[in-house]
Amino acid sequence: MAIAEITDKLLAAKKAKGVTFADLESAVGRDEVWIASVIYRQASASEEEAKKIVTALGLGPEYAEPLMECPLKGSLDQTIPTDPLIYRFYEIMQVYGMPIKAVVHEKFGDGIMSAIDFTLDVEKEEDPKGDRVKIVMSGKFLPYKKW
Amino acid sequence: MAIAEITDKLLAAKKAKGVTFADLESAVGRDEVWIASVIYRQASASEEEAKKIVTALGLGPEYAEPLMECPLKGSLDQTIPTDPLIYRFYEIMQVYGMPIKAVVHEKFGDGIMSAIDFTLDVEKEEDPKGDRVKIVMSGKFLPYKKW
Amino acid sequence: MAIAEITDKLLAAKKAKGVTFADLESAVGRDEVWIASVIYRQASASEEEAKKIVTALGLGPEYAEPLMECPLKGSLDQTIPTDPLIYRFYEIMQVYGMPIKAVVHEKFGDGIMSAIDFTLDVEKEEDPKGDRVKIVMSGKFLPYKKW
Amino acid sequence: MAIAEITDKLLAAKKAKGVTFADLESAVGRDEVWIASVIYRQASASEEEAKKIVTALGLGPEYAEPLMECPLKGSLDQTIPTDPLIYRFYEIMQVYGMPIKAVVHEKFGDGIMSAIDFTLDVEKEEDPKGDRVKIVMSGKFLPYKKW
Amino acid sequence: MAIAEITDKLLAAKKAKGVTFADLESAVGRDEVWIASVIYRQASASEEEAKKIVTALGLGPEYAEPLMECPLKGSLDQTIPTDPLIYRFYEIMQVYGMPIKAVVHEKFGDGIMSAIDFTLDVEKEEDPKGDRVKIVMSGKFLPYKKW
Amino acid sequence: MAIAEITDKLLAAKKAKGVTFADLESAVGRDEVWIASVIYRQASASEEEAKKIVTALGLGPEYAEPLMECPLKGSLDQTIPTDPLIYRFYEIMQVYGMPIKAVVHEKFGDGIMSAIDFTLDVEKEEDPKGDRVKIVMSGKFLPYKKW
Amino acid sequence: MAIAEITDKLLAAKKAKGVTFADLESAVGRDEVWIASVIYRQASASEEEAKKIVTALGLGPEYAEPLMECPLKGSLDQTIPTDPLIYRFYEIMQVYGMPIKAVVHEKFGDGIMSAIDFTLDVEKEEDPKGDRVKIVMSGKFLPYKKW
Amino acid sequence: MAIAEITDKLLAAKKAKGVTFADLESAVGRDEVWIASVIYRQASASEEEAKKIVTALGLGPEYAEPLMECPLKGSLDQTIPTDPLIYRFYEIMQVYGMPIKAVVHEKFGDGIMSAIDFTLDVEKEEDPKGDRVKIVMSGKFLPYKKW
Amino acid sequence: MAIAEITDKLLAAKKAKGVTFADLESAVGRDEVWIASVIYRQASASEEEAKKIVTALGLGPEYAEPLMECPLKGSLDQTIPTDPLIYRFYEIMQVYGMPIKAVVHEKFGDGIMSAIDFTLDVEKEEDPKGDRVKIVMSGKFLPYKKW
Amino acid sequence: MAIAEITDKLLAAKKAKGVTFADLESAVGRDEVWIASVIYRQASASEEEAKKIVTALGLGPEYAEPLMECPLKGSLDQTIPTDPLIYRFYEIMQVYGMPIKAVVHEKFGDGIMSAIDFTLDVEKEEDPKGDRVKIVMSGKFLPYKKW
Repeated sequence: MAIAEITDKLLAAKKAKGVTFADLESAVGRDEVWIASVIYRQASASEEEAKKIVTALGLGPEYAEPLMECPLKGSLDQTIPTDPLIYRFYEIMQVYGMPIKAVVHEKFGDGIMSAIDFTLDVEKEEDPKGDRVKIVMSGKFLPYKKW
Repeated sequence: MAIAEITDKLLAAKKAKGVTFADLESAVGRDEVWIASVIYRQASASEEEAKKIVTALGLGPEYAEPLMECPLKGSLDQTIPTDPLIYRFYEIMQVYGMPIKAVVHEKFGDGIMSAIDFTLDVEKEEDPKGDRVKIVMSGKFLPYKKW
Repeated sequence: MAIAEITDKLLAAKKAKGVTFADLESAVGRDEVWIASVIYRQASASEEEAKKIVTALGLGPEYAEPLMECPLKGSLDQTIPTDPLIYRFYEIMQVYGMPIKAVVHEKFGDGIMSAIDFTLDVEKEEDPKGDRVKIVMSGKFLPYKKW
Repeated sequence: MAIAEITDKLLAAKKAKGVTFADLESAVGRDEVWIASVIYRQASASEEEAKKIVTALGLGPEYAEPLMECPLKGSLDQTIPTDPLIYRFYEIMQVYGMPIKAVVHEKFGDGIMSAIDFTLDVEKEEDPKGDRVKIVMSGKFLPYKKW
Repeated sequence: MAIAEITDKLLAAKKAKGVTFADLESAVGRDEVWIASVIYRQASASEEEAKKIVTALGLGPEYAEPLMECPLKGSLDQTIPTDPLIYRFYEIMQVYGMPIKAVVHEKFGDGIMSAIDFTLDVEKEEDPKGDRVKIVMSGKFLPYKKW
Repeated sequence: MAIAEITDKLLAAKKAKGVTFADLESAVGRDEVWIASVIYRQASASEEEAKKIVTALGLGPEYAEPLMECPLKGSLDQTIPTDPLIYRFYEIMQVYGMPIKAVVHEKFGDGIMSAIDFTLDVEKEEDPKGDRVKIVMSGKFLPYKKW
Repeated sequence: MAIAEITDKLLAAKKAKGVTFADLESAVGRDEVWIASVIYRQASASEEEAKKIVTALGLGPEYAEPLMECPLKGSLDQTIPTDPLIYRFYEIMQVYGMPIKAVVHEKFGDGIMSAIDFTLDVEKEEDPKGDRVKIVMSGKFLPYKKW
Repeated sequence: MAIAEITDKLLAAKKAKGVTFADLESAVGRDEVWIASVIYRQASASEEEAKKIVTALGLGPEYAEPLMECPLKGSLDQTIPTDPLIYRFYEIMQVYGMPIKAVVHEKFGDGIMSAIDFTLDVEKEEDPKGDRVKIVMSGKFLPYKKW
Repeated sequence: MAIAEITDKLLAAKKAKGVTFADLESAVGRDEVWIASVIYRQASASEEEAKKIVTALGLGPEYAEPLMECPLKGSLDQTIPTDPLIYRFYEIMQVYGMPIKAVVHEKFGDGIMSAIDFTLDVEKEEDPKGDRVKIVMSGKFLPYKKW
Repeated sequence: MAIAEITDKLLAAKKAKGVTFADLESAVGRDEVWIASVIYRQASASEEEAKKIVTALGLGPEYAEPLMECPLKGSLDQTIPTDPLIYRFYEIMQVYGMPIKAVVHEKFGDGIMSAIDFTLDVEKEEDPKGDRVKIVMSGKFLPYKKW
C-alpha cells in the first residue's frame, strides 16, 4: 500500500507519543474513526480540526495543511483486499449484499444508503463468550429522483 | 445474477401473498436479514425454521428442504458490484477499510471481526432531514492464535 | 448483454407500434431518458407511471408490474464496455475525471455529485458543422459528513 | 496516481498563490475544466495558452513547454476508480449507458457522441434544497461511415 | 462467442448458396468488410442495403430488418482475444501503439484517427515469397477541441 | 508507462534538435514508423542503422548500442489502453475483428496475417472535409501447417 | 468449457468405437495431435482429411463438413487455466519464458518461433524411474522484417 | 519487468565479455537454457555450478551466492505476456491445450507432465525454407495418487 | 458453478439414500475426500471403484462410466472464490504462502510439494473450546531437476 | 514482491549467522512456521517473542519493535501466484475446494474452518520412494450464527 507520506509521519508521531485514537477523539471532538480517516487521507479536516489533530500528536502546525486537502479516496491497493480483517467486509458484501438490498428496498423503496452523508462507529462489546466488534453505520437514505 | 430457482419461487410467493420480511421475522422468530439470507441461499435453516418460512409464504412443506442445505455462498456475479446500493458497501470498505483496521487493532490487538459468528441488522432511523439507514454489525473478535 | 425479458417485450412493442421515446415522454410526463431507464430496468416506476408506459406501447396492464420492481442495476456486461457510443463515457471519465474532481472540490468543497438525486438529459443541438449531442447532468452536491 | 511532475509543480504554485481555476479561466480565455485538463496533462495547450497559464500561476516561461506536448491520456490508475466522486461517473455509465444509447440512436441514427470534438462544463446550481453540480457535455455526433 | 441468431442464419445461407463476400460487394455496392460487419451485427444497413444483402443470400425480406438496427458493438468475448488471427491486431497495438502515436502527433498535432468516420479494406497482395494480407485503414483525423 | 531511459534520451535529443521522424526516415533509409519503434524499444536496429539514428539526433555513438538489443516488446502499461488515440485500435479490433477474420479466411484459407513479417505505414491524406490518417499494414499470410 | 457440439459427437463416437488417436493417425496419415486439434475445432481439415476422420470414427460424411471450417481458436475458458495438466504449460511459460527468449535471440537474432508454421508431437518416453512425457515443438523462425 | 539486480550484473558481464550461453554450457556442464534460468533467477545452482558460471563471466566469487538461493519463480510481469516471442507459448497452450490433454490422457491415464522433474532444450534446425526453432520438453509423467 | 450433470445425479442419490461420505469410504475402500473428488469430477476412478461408488448410492452401473473419465479439473468458477469456507484456503495461501515456502526450502532444498502425488484428509478434532477441522496434506517433495 | 525492509534485514541476519527456522523454534518456543510468518510480517509477536527472535538472529533490540505491529496481511503480489511451490496451494483449493466443502459440511454442519484460530505445521516425512512434505492445518470450526 502506498501510504501517503503525511500519514506515515502522523502515525509515527502517534506511536512515539503513545496517543490513542480515543485520545484524539477527546482532543478533537470528532469520532476516532473519522479522525483515522483524516490521517489515512480518506477525509478532509477543517483548519481547526487539522490543527487540533497535529497538536494532539505533538507536531507543529505545518503538518496541518495536508490534512485539509480533498484526497483522492480509496485506501486499498487491491480490488479484493487480502488482509483478513478488511476482507471480511468484502465477504459481508458478497454474502449479505442481496439480502440487505431486499430489506432496504422493502423498508424504504428504490434508493440507496448514502456513503457520503454517512457515519461509522467501531465499538467494543464485552462478552463473556468473547468480546465482539460492533460496527454501526448510519447513512441517509437517498431515494432515486425521477425526472 | 443466477438467482437459485428456489429463491425465485419464494420471492414470487412472498410478493403474491403480500408478506414482508418483517412479517417473516414475526413468524419465524429470527431477524429479517437472516431470513432474507436463507431465501437468497446465503444461509441454511433448521428444518423447523425452514418449515416456518415456507408456511408463512403459503407454500407446501416440499419447499422447505432446499433451505436446509449448506449453500455455496456469495450472492453477487461481479467482483465489484455495479448495483449502486450494494456498491456503496464496496466503497465503504475501500474508503474506511484502513481506518477501521487501525481502530480495531488499537482496541482489540491483532485479529479480526468474525463474519461467521456475526449478526447484521438493518433499521430505519426516522430523521426530519431525511430518514437514515442504520446497519449494525456485530462480529466476535477473533484474536490470531499463536502456535 | 442479458436484456431482461420484459425489456425485450417492451422494445418490440415500441418498434411494432412506431412509438418514440419522445412520444413516451409526452404520454407519461417524465423525461425520455428516465423512461428508457425504466424499460431497461435501471429505474423503477410508480404504478401510475408503469401503466402509462405500457398503455402508450399498446400493451395490457399485466406488463406494468415488472416495471415497478427495484431492479438490480448496472446495464452493462463488461467492466470496460466495448460499444463505441458507451465507451466514450468511460473515456471521458478517464481523461476528464481528475480535472472535474479538482474543479468540483474548488467550487463545492469535499464531497460528490450524487448519482441518485440526479437527472440526465440528452438533447440534439443542430449545428451547421454537424449536429451535436448535448448531455446535461444535474446531481445534488453531497458534502462529506463529519462525525 | 502517478501525477506528472509538472502537474505537481503547477498545483503547488496555484495553491501558494491562491489562484482558482476560475481565475485561470479569466486569464487564459479558456474554460476552467479545459485548463485543469492541461494541468493534469490530459490536453495540450498552444504556446500562447501555455504561457498565459504559467504566468497566471506566477511561474517562469520554462514551465510552459511541457504543457504543449501531446500527453499519453487517461488520468486514472484504476480500471474502476475507487474515488467516490470519480466513481459516480462510472456508475452513471453503468446504469444509464444503455438508455442513453437507445435515445441517441433514436434521435441521431447509428453513430456516437465524439469525446474529441467535445466540451465539458462544470457549473454550480444554487438550490434551496442543496446546491447541485451541473455538468454539460457537448460532443459532435459522428455518424458511422459506410464504405 | 455469442453470435447473434441473424448472423448464424445469414452465414448458413451464404455457405449454402456459395456466395462470397466479394459477390456481396458486387451485389450491394459496398465494401465486403463493411458487409461482413453488417452481418456480424457491428454495423447497421439502410433498408435498401439490407434488402440487397438478404436477396443476394437468397433469403426473404423478413431477414432484412434486424440488419437495420443499431447494434451493441464489440464482436469479441474476451478482453484479449485468443484467436491467433485476431490477436495479431492486439499485438500490433501493443508493439506499435506508442510509435504510431508519436508519428501521428508529429504529422497532425494532438488528436486521434476516428474509428467512426473510418474505412477498412482487406486486400490480397500476390507475392512470390508468399502472398500478403494488406489492410488499409483510413480514419478522419479529429483534432482535440479546446473550449 | 515505464519508458526506457534510452527512449527518453533520444526523444529529448530529437526535440532539442528539432528533428522529425520524417527527417530520420531520410537519414536512415528506413520508414519513420519503424524508426519510432526502434526508439521506443519495440524493434532492434543493426549497428549501422543504430549509428545513423543517433548521429541524426546529434548524439554520440555510445547511444547506438542499446538500440541493437532485442527488446522485451509491448509498449503499453494497460491491458486496454486509456489513451484515446491508441484505444481506437483496440476498438477497431473489437468491432471489426470477426468481419476481418471472415474475409481473410475466405480470401486465403485458414491462417493469419503475420505481425512479424509485417510493415506498417502512417500517411496523411489531405481531404477538404478534414485530413485523414491512412494506415497501411502489410503482413505475410501464414497458412496453418498440418503435420 | 463450451465444447463445440461436433466435438462432443466425435469424442462420443471415438469412445463408443474404441478408436485411439493413434488409430486416427494411421487412418488419416496425419499426426494424432493435429487430428485432436481438428476434433477440438482448433484446426481445419481438407475435405479428404475430414472424411477420413469421420469414417474412421464410424460416422456418416455429413459430420465431415464442420471439420473443414476455419474455427475461432482458443480452446480454454480461463485466462489462466485451472486444469493441472494444462496449467503446467502456463507455468513453463512463466518460469522459462525469459530464459528461452534470451537463448532464441542469441541463436537466431530478433524474431519469434512461429506458432502457425508449427508442429507439436507428444511422445511417451519409457523410463525405469517413471515414464516421461516428451513434447517436441518445431516452429519456423520468423525474423522481424524492417521497412 | 523487475529484473533482479544480480541478473542485470551477469547479463552485462556476459555481453561485455562476449560469452554466449553455449559457452556457458561448455564451461558449466549444464544445458544453456538451465543456465539462463539460473541467471534470470528461475532456478538455483549448487555452489560449484554458481562459481563456474560467475568465473566464466569473469566475475568474482561474491556473485555466486545469490545464484544459490531458491528464487521466487515466475519471470513475467503480465498475466498474458505482450512480448510476441513469449506470447506464442501462451497461444500454443490456448490452441493446443485441450488436444494435448486428450492425447496425454489416452497414452498415460490421468495425471500430468511434471514441470519440476522437467528439462527443456532449444535447438536450431537448419532448413532451406527457413530455419526452425525446435523446443524439446521432457517431463516425468506423474499419475494422480488415490488415497 | 456449472456442476456436472453426473455430479448432481450422484449427490441427489446420496441425499435420497442418506449415505454419508464416510459410508462411501467404507464401501469403496478409499478416503472420503478422494471419493468426493471423484463425484465432483476432479479425480477419475477405476472401473471397480466407480461401480462400488454408484452401487453404494443405489444407482445402476450405467452411472459408473462418467466417473472413469479424466476430467477437466478446477472446481470453482471464480478466480478468488467467494464462498467463505473455500476462501479461507485462498487466505491461508496469501498469508502463509511465503513463510511455508521459506520453511520448505530450508528443510528440502529447491523444489515443491506435489499436488498430484498427494493426499488430503479432513478430520474432526473434538475440543472442549470448540471442535476443530484438521486437514492433513501429504505431497511428495519434487526437487527441481537440473539438466 | 515488496518484501518489508525489516524482513530483508532479518533474513540477511539469519543467513549470515546460519540460523535455521528450527533453531528459532527452539529459541523462541513457538513453531517455525509461525516465526517465519512474523518475519515475513504476516503475524505479530509479543514484545518477549520479538526480542527472542532478534536476539537469536544476533540483532539488537531495536529490531524487535516492528515485529510487534499488526501487519497489513497478504504476502503475495499476484492474485494467482506464479511461484510453483505457492501455486500448488491455489491448485489444491481449485481442485479439492468443493470436495472439502462437502465433507466439512457433512461432518460439522454449516460453517467454516477458521483461518485465525488456526495453526499450520510443515513436516518432513521420510519415505524410501521420495520424502514427502506433510502440512497439517488445524482451524477451529466456526458454525454460522443465526440471529
